[in-house]
Amino acid sequence: MQKLINDPERFVDEMLDGLLLAHPDLLKASPADRRVLVRADLPTPGRVGIVTGGGSGHLPVFLGYVGTGLCTAAAVGNVFSSPSSAQFLEATRAANGGAGVLYLYGNYGGDVLNVDLAADAAEDEGIPTRSVVVSDDVAAAPPERADDRRGVAGLFFAYKCAGAAAERGDSLDEVAKIAGTAAEATRSMGVGLSAAILPTVGRPTFELQSGEMEIGIGIHGEPGVHRGPLEPADAVTERLVGAIAEDLQLGTGDRVAVLVNGLGATPREELYIVYRHTRHILDGLGVTVEHPYIGEYATSLEMAGASVSIMRLDADLAELLDAPARSPFFQR
Amino acid sequence: MQKLINDPERFVDEMLDGLLLAHPDLLKASPADRRVLVRADLPTPGRVGIVTGGGSGHLPVFLGYVGTGLCTAAAVGNVFSSPSSAQFLEATRAANGGAGVLYLYGNYGGDVLNVDLAADAAEDEGIPTRSVVVSDDVAAAPPERADDRRGVAGLFFAYKCAGAAAERGDSLDEVAKIAGTAAEATRSMGVGLSAAILPTVGRPTFELQSGEMEIGIGIHGEPGVHRGPLEPADAVTERLVGAIAEDLQLGTGDRVAVLVNGLGATPREELYIVYRHTRHILDGLGVTVEHPYIGEYATSLEMAGASVSIMRLDADLAELLDAPARSPFFQR
Repeated sequence: MQKLINDPERFVDEMLDGLLLAHPDLLKASPADRRVLVRADLPTPGRVGIVTGGGSGHLPVFLGYVGTGLCTAAAVGNVFSSPSSAQFLEATRAANGGAGVLYLYGNYGGDVLNVDLAADAAEDEGIPTRSVVVSDDVAAAPPERADDRRGVAGLFFAYKCAGAAAERGDSLDEVAKIAGTAAEATRSMGVGLSAAILPTVGRPTFELQSGEMEIGIGIHGEPGVHRGPLEPADAVTERLVGAIAEDLQLGTGDRVAVLVNGLGATPREELYIVYRHTRHILDGLGVTVEHPYIGEYATSLEMAGASVSIMRLDADLAELLDAPARSPFFQR
Repeated sequence: MQKLINDPERFVDEMLDGLLLAHPDLLKASPADRRVLVRADLPTPGRVGIVTGGGSGHLPVFLGYVGTGLCTAAAVGNVFSSPSSAQFLEATRAANGGAGVLYLYGNYGGDVLNVDLAADAAEDEGIPTRSVVVSDDVAAAPPERADDRRGVAGLFFAYKCAGAAAERGDSLDEVAKIAGTAAEATRSMGVGLSAAILPTVGRPTFELQSGEMEIGIGIHGEPGVHRGPLEPADAVTERLVGAIAEDLQLGTGDRVAVLVNGLGATPREELYIVYRHTRHILDGLGVTVEHPYIGEYATSLEMAGASVSIMRLDADLAELLDAPARSPFFQR
C-alpha cells in the first residue's frame, strides 16, 4: 500500500486537520462536530444554505465544494462511507441562515437515508428543507430507471449552479429548482484503469489486470458495463461521450458544459487527450462546448481512469456557471 | 501501461490540441511553432516577457504557468526531454514586448544548453535577456554544490513572484532580481512511492518495490538520497521538512510559503496529511506559514509521491505571491 498516511483509522481526521490548518480563511469546523465543515464566513443571513456530504476519499468531492458561490456546509464520512444523520443535521443547523436549507448530494443509499433522517429532524426544528439527489452516471442503470443511477462527477455542475443561485439571493424553492434542472441536464460516465485501495483495508477494492479497462465504473469501484482490453484514448472517449450524448439526446444547436475528470492517478496530460476527442465528437454532432473543465473534480483515492460529464446548458445555467466561486479546490 | 493515450508518439501534440481547444481565452500557440505556447493576450507592450519551458509530463509545469501574472511563453519538449533552442528562441520572440525577456526555468542540462543558445540568438536580434535557473532540490547535491541541484516544484514560487513583478511593470533587471531572490529563498525535497511510465517506453523509469519509498527522488525518477521501507507520513514529512529547514537555516521569526505538491498519483487527502505535519514541524521551529499551497503543481506523469517546497518570505515576495494570477492551472 503505497500511501503517505499514518494510522489508517486517523486518515480522515488528519486530512481534516491539514485542511483546516491550510485554509482557515475559507473553511472552519462546526464547534459541535469536527466532521462538519462550513464556510468560514458563516452565518450568511437571508441566504439559502446548501448542505452536501458523503464518504471521504473523493477530494474535491464533497467538502472541497464548500465555499463562496458553492455549498455552505459538508458532512464528512469515513472513506467511502456515509456520514451519520447527526452529522447531516449539524451541517443543516450550521448552514441555516434563516432562508432554509437545500440538501444536494449524490445518489448512494446510506447518504439518502441519513439525509432524510436529518431533514425530518431539521423540519422539527423549524428549518425548511428541500433535497436534490444527483444521479448522473449513465452506466449505473438504463434510462427507465434513471433514478437508480449513482451520483458521480456531474455533481460539480449542480453545486456550481445552485451555489451561485443561493449566493445571488434566490429563495429555497428557486435554488432547489435550479439544482434539479442542473442535475436533470447532466450525465456522466467513467473508465477505470486501476483500483483504489482503502487505507483501512490495504488491498485493491477490485482486481483489474494490466492492459484491461472497465467502462462505466463507479467512484467506489462499482462494476461497470464493459470490461475488456484497454483501447486507445479516442475509442474510450467515444464509448463515454457516445453513451452520454445518446442518453441526453444531444443534437445540433445544443450548448453544453463539459467536465473531463481524473479519478486520481491519471495525469492531466491524458485528460486533455480525452478532452480533445470529446470536442471532436461534440463538434461532429453540432454541439457547442461553452464551459470546459479539465482536472480532478471527483476522485476515487488513487484510482487510475477518467470520467466525462456533460451538462446541457440553458441561459440561466450558463450564467450561473460564470458566477464567481471560491473554495480551496475551485475558483472561478 | 494503464494510460488513456493514442499513439505514444503523438502524446504531446494531442495534449496540446486538447489544451488549446479548452482554453483559447487564455492560451494560444505561436504561429511559427505549435510547441510554443503563449498568453492569449499577447503582445503586452512595455512588459518584461518571461519564457520558461522544458520536457512534457510534468503538468502544470511548465506550460501550465503561462498566464496573467505568471509566465509569458513556454517551449514544450517531448516527455522528459528539453525543447530545442529554436523553440526557446521562438518563445523569446513571442514574449518580447520591448522590455526584454527573462528565462526562468529548472536546472537540467539540456534546458540550460538550449536556453543559452536561444539567448545568444535573441541578443543578436536585439532582444535583451536575463536567465534565472532554479535549483531547489536539496537532495540533488550538498549546499557547497547548490548550483548543481535540480529544479523541481519550487519553480512555482519563482514563476509567481517574477510574473507578478513583470505584470506590475518592473524592468528586466528588477524582474530578474526578484526571480533570483525567490529562487535563492526556496528549497524542495520529494519522496517517490512508485515510478512513472513514459508513453513511448511503456515500462517504469525505475523499479521500486511495494512497501518501499525513495527519499529525494527527482521528477524524472532521478535517484534520491535514501531508499528503504515506507515510513508513516509524519516520519517521511520530518525527513523532507527537516532537510529543507536545515538547508534554508530556518529559525524563529521566519515567515515562509509552503507548497505540498503531489507527483501525480497521490491523492490530495494524503497531501493534506503531509501538510498537517509540515505545519507541526514549522510551528515547533517558530516559523510562520503565511502562504500554503496544496495540490499538484509539478508532476511526474503517474508517479506516486509528494514533495515539499518552502520559500522564505520577505515583504516583497509575500506581496508578489498575493498578486492576481490566472492560467488554466492556477488562479489567485
